[in-house]
Amino acid sequence: MTSGEVDPAGHVTSPRGFVAGAAYAGIKTYGEGKLDLAILVSELPCTTAATFTRSRLQAAAVDIDRAKLAARPARGVVVNSGIANASTGRRGIEDGYALARLAAQRAGIQEDEMLVCSTGVIGQYLPMERLAAAMPKVVLSREGGAEFARAIITTDTRPKTGAVRFGPYTIGGACKGSGMIHPNMATMLAFLTTDAPVEAGFLRAAFSRAVDDSFNLVSVDGDTSPSDTAVVFANGAAGGELIAAGSALAAKFESALRALCVHLAREIARDGEGATKLVEFSVREAASPEDARHLVRLLSTSYLLKSAIHGADPNWGRITAVIGRSGVTFNDDAVTIDLCGVRVFEHGRPTAFNAAALSQAMRGSEVSIEVALGAGQEAATGWGCDLSAEYVAINADYHT
Amino acid sequence: MTSGEVDPAGHVTSPRGFVAGAAYAGIKTYGEGKLDLAILVSELPCTTAATFTRSRLQAAAVDIDRAKLAARPARGVVVNSGIANASTGRRGIEDGYALARLAAQRAGIQEDEMLVCSTGVIGQYLPMERLAAAMPKVVLSREGGAEFARAIITTDTRPKTGAVRFGPYTIGGACKGSGMIHPNMATMLAFLTTDAPVEAGFLRAAFSRAVDDSFNLVSVDGDTSPSDTAVVFANGAAGGELIAAGSALAAKFESALRALCVHLAREIARDGEGATKLVEFSVREAASPEDARHLVRLLSTSYLLKSAIHGADPNWGRITAVIGRSGVTFNDDAVTIDLCGVRVFEHGRPTAFNAAALSQAMRGSEVSIEVALGAGQEAATGWGCDLSAEYVAINADYHT
Repeated sequence: MTSGEVDPAGHVTSPRGFVAGAAYAGIKTYGEGKLDLAILVSELPCTTAATFTRSRLQAAAVDIDRAKLAARPARGVVVNSGIANASTGRRGIEDGYALARLAAQRAGIQEDEMLVCSTGVIGQYLPMERLAAAMPKVVLSREGGAEFARAIITTDTRPKTGAVRFGPYTIGGACKGSGMIHPNMATMLAFLTTDAPVEAGFLRAAFSRAVDDSFNLVSVDGDTSPSDTAVVFANGAAGGELIAAGSALAAKFESALRALCVHLAREIARDGEGATKLVEFSVREAASPEDARHLVRLLSTSYLLKSAIHGADPNWGRITAVIGRSGVTFNDDAVTIDLCGVRVFEHGRPTAFNAAALSQAMRGSEVSIEVALGAGQEAATGWGCDLSAEYVAINADYHT
Repeated sequence: MTSGEVDPAGHVTSPRGFVAGAAYAGIKTYGEGKLDLAILVSELPCTTAATFTRSRLQAAAVDIDRAKLAARPARGVVVNSGIANASTGRRGIEDGYALARLAAQRAGIQEDEMLVCSTGVIGQYLPMERLAAAMPKVVLSREGGAEFARAIITTDTRPKTGAVRFGPYTIGGACKGSGMIHPNMATMLAFLTTDAPVEAGFLRAAFSRAVDDSFNLVSVDGDTSPSDTAVVFANGAAGGELIAAGSALAAKFESALRALCVHLAREIARDGEGATKLVEFSVREAASPEDARHLVRLLSTSYLLKSAIHGADPNWGRITAVIGRSGVTFNDDAVTIDLCGVRVFEHGRPTAFNAAALSQAMRGSEVSIEVALGAGQEAATGWGCDLSAEYVAINADYHT
């Protein structure tokens, strides 16, 4: 693994001083591997940063983790998949704390150092007896990263992991998402680990920026789960000087962290429900960062555009329609649109492109859409996927 | 037809003093009837009101009609279907004016009294020679309303018309929409006529409110066309006193106008591409009208919810997810959700409803979703449809 390059075979246990493991508590009845309970923990105390769903209806785990992180840094997380423990009221909160307590005992850390995440069907209570019975079967090890990544997924078709090096340090990660939880809602969870020593304030700031430019610009279907969570643990196990704002390695750390977050975010889009393609949306020459991000989000959630991409149709009219309704500032005569690197629209008119050749290019597994607005210097890039009949089947034919 | 009740068999020519007709110019190669050029005109001068797309990328016809209406009231409109004359630059503007001129000559009115609307594929020029050749074949008559309604549709599966009476007066209407124009964009056009004498300022205000509560709360796929247009013509052919703000018949007129707009809007949603169901979304107890309307729009465009409705799945979790991410004010403990009249969620928790029976009810051709936010007194109702594999097929498999 070259420094700065993401290795998709890396894991949350690639950095020094992290162990993980998983077991089957009998909650999840689908997917391969039959793992639905997982623990990740640092052998050393950590600095920690986390971001949570912006939905006002938050799952129990989100309330619990916010409260815990406000009190002290965490060094581990227990995840169950199959039931989201959302819309479960006071009992859901109690169950979440109890699950974290069981996992902390298993891992040998303090209860308030253990976070909890749940993903799956909402409106159901956690089966606490089955979770308690499965907990002793979780064996924590330096090789547990792969198992951890398999245990946290729901309807994802594959685990999503990666690691990246910078200087003497490693950052590892795993995420799940774009799966529709049978039968309720997609949830994105992401866990990152590093053996670098990172000052808490800088870790929060750098992680917030990295999440903004990666997970927050992914869309499979525009819906937000009440459980979305991304956490990073930095345990300093590899030694060296504390990385803080302005310190020598700060920029390298942030750039490596961002690269790994972007890699994981792209994996989520690529594995979107029913997706046959990863689509990268780039907006340039925007008047503001907000305009650029807003247009990326609108493009990545347009039914018409997602359908056209599915059909490999170089349908620039669906892109201009989104620009037109977006409310962002643009210069009518300067807007350009490139589809898979081919200029299809400029000066307010379509170009004379070869539609058959472009459609052929769009049949590939990755499609790029680049819009320049001619209104400024700002840019944003995000990721999504095509809309297929399979998406409808996944989300219509399963039943509550 | 009882006073105040919408008769779906009514037409734009139901009110006195309006004539219409259509012909085939060889533009539209799909759909029944082979009509793609239509004229509607009042035998008397009119007061007129119109609303247009909010997209910043407007089709030529929208620019032209705005300019004409700023100068004097219109009394007729020519519509072609099959080509939208959008993204066509200066030549598109010239073509649009020329089409209106040809139609005005045919109808015997002044050129600047004739509006123009075009719907269909974007980025193509109007075939002016074929349109000019077809114009003499348009025969205007009091029986032309049905032909007019058929000529303006594109991929709609059926014409959409109606009429309503109030006092001695009639309001007629026709619209098209929710069709994906092969292969570009959905456009909504609506034309209303009345033989009531209506003061221009009041007509504008009443029409604006009626459009806001009807066409502006319909969503098939969340995309806005650059050609959306709704126009009302009031010719006073039935005589009587001028209806103005505060006059005796003002409220009756506005209520009848609104009822007809809502009827036409519902017909658009019901005929949404690939739709198998009309869905009515009602939000009550909102803190503001904006909150209520915003939530109606989010609900009616959620991929997850539209898929669940298609599958007749009483999946309240997809509704709470939309509420949670919406940003609207709500009272966690007071939110209630009714699906087809069955209470499925209250006090922050699902109720013990009979899922099998409710799913059976959801298999009908109309589904209602009612959300009460417990945050205030405001309300809004809108319409949409389910998301089917057929929608994807229509929009992915056609090619530019």
